[in-house]
Amino acid sequence: MSDGSATPWGVHSEVGRLRTVMVCAPGRAHARLTPSNCDDLLFDDVLWVERARADHDDFVASMTARGIEVLEFLDLLAETVAVPEARDWVLDQQVHPHRVGVELVDAVRGHLEGLEARELAETLVGGLSTREVPDAGSADLMRFVRDSTGVAEYLLPPLPNMLYTRDTTCWVYGGVTLNPLYFAARTEETVLTTAVYRHHPRFAGQVREWWGDPTQDWALATVEGGDVMPIGNRTVLVGLSERTSRQGISSLAKALFAGGAVDRVVVAVLPRMRATMHLDTVLTFADRDCVLVHPDTMNEVRTFSLRPDGRGGLDVRAEDKPLTEVVADALGLQRLRVLETSGNAYVRERTQWDSGANIVALEPGVVMAYDRNTHTNALLRENGIEVIEIVGAELGRGRGGGHCMTCPIVRDPLDA
Amino acid sequence: MSDGSATPWGVHSEVGRLRTVMVCAPGRAHARLTPSNCDDLLFDDVLWVERARADHDDFVASMTARGIEVLEFLDLLAETVAVPEARDWVLDQQVHPHRVGVELVDAVRGHLEGLEARELAETLVGGLSTREVPDAGSADLMRFVRDSTGVAEYLLPPLPNMLYTRDTTCWVYGGVTLNPLYFAARTEETVLTTAVYRHHPRFAGQVREWWGDPTQDWALATVEGGDVMPIGNRTVLVGLSERTSRQGISSLAKALFAGGAVDRVVVAVLPRMRATMHLDTVLTFADRDCVLVHPDTMNEVRTFSLRPDGRGGLDVRAEDKPLTEVVADALGLQRLRVLETSGNAYVRERTQWDSGANIVALEPGVVMAYDRNTHTNALLRENGIEVIEIVGAELGRGRGGGHCMTCPIVRDPLDA
Amino acid sequence: MSDGSATPWGVHSEVGRLRTVMVCAPGRAHARLTPSNCDDLLFDDVLWVERARADHDDFVASMTARGIEVLEFLDLLAETVAVPEARDWVLDQQVHPHRVGVELVDAVRGHLEGLEARELAETLVGGLSTREVPDAGSADLMRFVRDSTGVAEYLLPPLPNMLYTRDTTCWVYGGVTLNPLYFAARTEETVLTTAVYRHHPRFAGQVREWWGDPTQDWALATVEGGDVMPIGNRTVLVGLSERTSRQGISSLAKALFAGGAVDRVVVAVLPRMRATMHLDTVLTFADRDCVLVHPDTMNEVRTFSLRPDGRGGLDVRAEDKPLTEVVADALGLQRLRVLETSGNAYVRERTQWDSGANIVALEPGVVMAYDRNTHTNALLRENGIEVIEIVGAELGRGRGGGHCMTCPIVRDPLDA
Amino acid sequence: MSDGSATPWGVHSEVGRLRTVMVCAPGRAHARLTPSNCDDLLFDDVLWVERARADHDDFVASMTARGIEVLEFLDLLAETVAVPEARDWVLDQQVHPHRVGVELVDAVRGHLEGLEARELAETLVGGLSTREVPDAGSADLMRFVRDSTGVAEYLLPPLPNMLYTRDTTCWVYGGVTLNPLYFAARTEETVLTTAVYRHHPRFAGQVREWWGDPTQDWALATVEGGDVMPIGNRTVLVGLSERTSRQGISSLAKALFAGGAVDRVVVAVLPRMRATMHLDTVLTFADRDCVLVHPDTMNEVRTFSLRPDGRGGLDVRAEDKPLTEVVADALGLQRLRVLETSGNAYVRERTQWDSGANIVALEPGVVMAYDRNTHTNALLRENGIEVIEIVGAELGRGRGGGHCMTCPIVRDPLDA
Repeated sequence: MSDGSATPWGVHSEVGRLRTVMVCAPGRAHARLTPSNCDDLLFDDVLWVERARADHDDFVASMTARGIEVLEFLDLLAETVAVPEARDWVLDQQVHPHRVGVELVDAVRGHLEGLEARELAETLVGGLSTREVPDAGSADLMRFVRDSTGVAEYLLPPLPNMLYTRDTTCWVYGGVTLNPLYFAARTEETVLTTAVYRHHPRFAGQVREWWGDPTQDWALATVEGGDVMPIGNRTVLVGLSERTSRQGISSLAKALFAGGAVDRVVVAVLPRMRATMHLDTVLTFADRDCVLVHPDTMNEVRTFSLRPDGRGGLDVRAEDKPLTEVVADALGLQRLRVLETSGNAYVRERTQWDSGANIVALEPGVVMAYDRNTHTNALLRENGIEVIEIVGAELGRGRGGGHCMTCPIVRDPLDA
Repeated sequence: MSDGSATPWGVHSEVGRLRTVMVCAPGRAHARLTPSNCDDLLFDDVLWVERARADHDDFVASMTARGIEVLEFLDLLAETVAVPEARDWVLDQQVHPHRVGVELVDAVRGHLEGLEARELAETLVGGLSTREVPDAGSADLMRFVRDSTGVAEYLLPPLPNMLYTRDTTCWVYGGVTLNPLYFAARTEETVLTTAVYRHHPRFAGQVREWWGDPTQDWALATVEGGDVMPIGNRTVLVGLSERTSRQGISSLAKALFAGGAVDRVVVAVLPRMRATMHLDTVLTFADRDCVLVHPDTMNEVRTFSLRPDGRGGLDVRAEDKPLTEVVADALGLQRLRVLETSGNAYVRERTQWDSGANIVALEPGVVMAYDRNTHTNALLRENGIEVIEIVGAELGRGRGGGHCMTCPIVRDPLDA
Repeated sequence: MSDGSATPWGVHSEVGRLRTVMVCAPGRAHARLTPSNCDDLLFDDVLWVERARADHDDFVASMTARGIEVLEFLDLLAETVAVPEARDWVLDQQVHPHRVGVELVDAVRGHLEGLEARELAETLVGGLSTREVPDAGSADLMRFVRDSTGVAEYLLPPLPNMLYTRDTTCWVYGGVTLNPLYFAARTEETVLTTAVYRHHPRFAGQVREWWGDPTQDWALATVEGGDVMPIGNRTVLVGLSERTSRQGISSLAKALFAGGAVDRVVVAVLPRMRATMHLDTVLTFADRDCVLVHPDTMNEVRTFSLRPDGRGGLDVRAEDKPLTEVVADALGLQRLRVLETSGNAYVRERTQWDSGANIVALEPGVVMAYDRNTHTNALLRENGIEVIEIVGAELGRGRGGGHCMTCPIVRDPLDA
Repeated sequence: MSDGSATPWGVHSEVGRLRTVMVCAPGRAHARLTPSNCDDLLFDDVLWVERARADHDDFVASMTARGIEVLEFLDLLAETVAVPEARDWVLDQQVHPHRVGVELVDAVRGHLEGLEARELAETLVGGLSTREVPDAGSADLMRFVRDSTGVAEYLLPPLPNMLYTRDTTCWVYGGVTLNPLYFAARTEETVLTTAVYRHHPRFAGQVREWWGDPTQDWALATVEGGDVMPIGNRTVLVGLSERTSRQGISSLAKALFAGGAVDRVVVAVLPRMRATMHLDTVLTFADRDCVLVHPDTMNEVRTFSLRPDGRGGLDVRAEDKPLTEVVADALGLQRLRVLETSGNAYVRERTQWDSGANIVALEPGVVMAYDRNTHTNALLRENGIEVIEIVGAELGRGRGGGHCMTCPIVRDPLDA
């Protein structure tokens, strides 16, 4: 970890001009999904991969056309594992006897060492099944190894959730967090992204790590990027959700305060329901002074503010006002325009399911959103927001939208 | 860890005379279970705790009456945490910022330090909720902490599965394994049992640890004691099940071979179904030459033998014969009497569900079994096996039987 | 249907002296239950049938010892199908080509005609599988018939819910309702009970039928007896629940008003959750002025009163007061003692699950309750209620208690 | 029912030239679906209705462009309910006190009588909620009625499965069957289609009804059109599936034999799994001598032939050969080309889920299929089949394909 003071990287708001963003197109991992294994692989549904990929290409093209630099994670990872020490570090983590089995560890390591960088990157994200590794040792050994089915078939697990680059790591102002994810099985995602930040020629030595380290055991202290929003004004808004725990938030807050990254962490305690997996499924920013929310959930949110207590600990205060007012205060706004995902109860529930509130701003007042949430998109437009549509028929099946599919790396502050 | 050569402890068979056994009576953890949280707490059903406790007392009394020394885990744990360094080690593991939160770690540690040993042991197994810890810091801090509900309410999780002392650690001939369990949330069980073996006055310095260490990350290398049977003749029979993985078995086998504990590991690959969670749910020993099996499952088992390959690795061989024949061979028996849990298809399925095959031998030809599996118990008796009944109305609701509820610590070899 | 004016039968309160009651012991139908078919057979869990039966015998003996006449449904059914026209009517309903198949209808009818009355009654309740019917026609026909598995295996379905005689039919003052049950697959239960009331020598011609007819299609108009309480004072309290619909209640109310049975129907609209399947899972009577309730549910109940509008229709009024106050008013009581199933949130939830509120009064101030709800039973006793315990380890697994397992046929009014 | 001898209607094969077909575009019923109610409304997923409708329009346009007459069910229904006696018959069935409640039956009937025909048809298919019916009677009555939520909110249920016109009724050579569907809640679909055949000016008096009558109770005798294929040569192929029962098949067979419709019913007994809901999810025809099958399922199918036994009963014979050979024999073909949905195990499972085998032939060798099953479509084309694609992103979410979405009314015989 460098001191990072001169780093060009950093995300200074939720709606300032987006300059550089990391995405990960659907691919080999998604081609592994079937109706019977998708639960175990922690993905909601089965995609038509070719179409999803084409729709993702269009999504990327819309951003590129706006002058945004879009980094494809697989490219970054391929360039990273081309660096010998990076490759070694990744393989040391992933090809461990506790993961692939003592009887296979040499064979798997050897197989992966032999792959060229691009194929290695594809394999690390797409998974490696016992059927794909060449025979090693006796035929009976391979029978033993291949006897397991289902997810046990994978020596390296497919990582379909890499599509959601938002979760794994997140930039909070001038540094990054390497998130311990809710499902232990997703630790690999953080390992791979960490490798990129630490070893990719473009990032190596220039990334300040605020918090998180995928080689440690974080137990209950989990954080996912969909819950973390550096909204500006030295404040970060964090959702306490199904996936981001109190333990994770307080550990993160302490580190951010210690690093001087922020002065305040506003915690939105979400009700526990499937559809509120993350804060960004119910609240996202559309403009400097405008948020889009799912009203049914907002009514049940409770809000706390964490600040440094001056003795290395946390000062916790319960907020009496609704979350959106607390956010307005934190941003020094007179008021925040609050757009509620619209339509009748049917439409609101469907919109929530279809990631209708999960928009991502490209600059103030310009957002990307799934095409299928027509009521919400109309509402945004009526309120002066420009909406660029993402084809959601396939991409939306994993229950994440434009916000989830983007990891901003450079975004301007609000007043830029 | 001592060399253990002079240790009095050891389990040398599945049916030799049982001399010392560890159990854990139902209690506070089970009183936390409700229909809506039992899934999250990894327990199958809700018990009437007082009655379950009384039935467990009777179970223990039946063993005591046979001259078996029965060690209650909570007693052992209370005596262990009375030892300062043991208490410190346990609290260092359990009261970690990643578990209880940085904002509470001192308060929780202080609270637990203040408990007398018995209450501390009860709390470590029974759990500690945010409502039970005294107020620490501001009222708003406690509101923040207590805002979480469901399992997130627990600062120390209830451990209802400690009832199944079989799983957590197991004696394989003269040493013990400290098992990495399938659900990461059950690691605490192994931590507590490890503390007993390492620090309890009766065990400290006398226990040889073959394998496992609850402070490490074992990833996919999981083993549970219900799958591990030191059947005698320097052989251990292990089930590859929902809970015990190939990675766990090969790592365990390598360690057992390195330690000179056994010459052969027979692996029974079980079909993946809920009812075959562990090998001991479908196969247990009733006598020197007699096993009780669930026939529907046995037909789908495949068998492999692992042996040292002389170069520090594993020699793997697929077995052509049915598992019971392989076991007979391994024991040097002409044949094994195979009793099949009986009745029609209805009865067999129910018997399996009701842990009908999950018997535990007190000595050759004398077993304990749930009362409710009347067909199976009659079958055992017709075949000359003495059956001592356990009242299963409550104890059986967690889907484990007498084998699961016992961790033998001293058991004679077959020829003793 | 007779005019019934001189009938000795009738239930005139929820707590007056119970004189005659109908029950149905667990038996053959429950022996068919397995973990994998119990959902399809609409029963919650698997019982140890012999023990459940012994516990049910004790339950019956407790009532008999109090001078209550207990009629066993299977005895009544056996005596009923001994009457040729009754047997014909039942078999016309049950052995229909649409149920058993045109290719088997003669064979099944012939088989059942050949059974003596007791065995026929056992078969009607216990079910008839394709394996039990003798070969009829060609071997290929029987292969075709027996090729189906699971519930499709049953030519007559097992009726394990007959254990809950409360649901199927219910006495409301001087007449009976023949309830269209929520699950169409339970219609057989109503058919069999109807046969008893219409044809059994003791009842034939003496039973006034207020409403319901199992040969009709009731569509969404369903009522189950666990929701129907003739509380006295010409009022019936009815739960609008998962199982008893608005359509059922208004149809029932209209018929009761037309028959002059009652002047008022108080409707308790229950929240939709599994544990509030019926009103009697959250509210039952313990004494003339005392009810036992599950407080968490009571807070969410809304109450309406239905009365005749004088033009053959219903006058509907929303009640502002809580249900228990409405009930007190209806009974002309100054106040009702409301005992809340006690203990902390854990205990309350478990008690609800374990049918803790589902008590049945034998006379004012004397109730039967499951032994396992110790908190609730202590509360009742502290309040002067005599509690006679039912062993619930097996009987309680179907999620019904003493109230569910009894169909009162003669019960005194409150002022008797 | 007319004698129908001169009727122009009739379906004489699975692949002969399709001339007239009935479809039902997605609409109001689908707009009611939400993630939380779709299970209760018996539909698999939530659609983007506008897009689904546009994709369905394209599907229809592809058929129209081939000269096929496509009848939209909603149009037919609107024209039908414009006929007074048809409107009366439908409303007598649908607006019954047991469905809407005695207290609302007049108000609902009055409301529906007041709608013009098109809106009435939309309402019958799209559903009527308690919020849509105008206030009737007192405010308290409406509070009572509107207190119910979820599916209980519907006075007329939404019928999203009408999209699958294949299921409800089916033409078998010169007559139609009015199918009793598996879920009782879908009976309305058959009622509405029956009304069209009986009362629409184009059909009235000209439709021969072989079997089925939605005003009767069919109990376990259920048949769905996705299981019924009039393959030609006086034979009908029927799947015994989750939805089509033995009782339904034997009743249907008897009626078809009695009416002289066919000489043989070939029964394919499907394994019980979700993905094999209907025969047409695993086997459809692509050409005179070519079928597309899901190989994993085919291996588990058992086959029987039913023929008239000359005494009004059924002659049942078990077939030894695989289903496809039995079909070839029945059609008098030397051999059938059997195309297996292709790809590896992942792809085959996904293709099955995505209705990949559910193609519909427009004429011999020309089929319509979802675009997303690219492997299967390539296979068909390699084998000389012309594939016209249907955009499946939305339409496929209900788990039915082109075969399910079409009810052929006029189709030529194979040799035409």
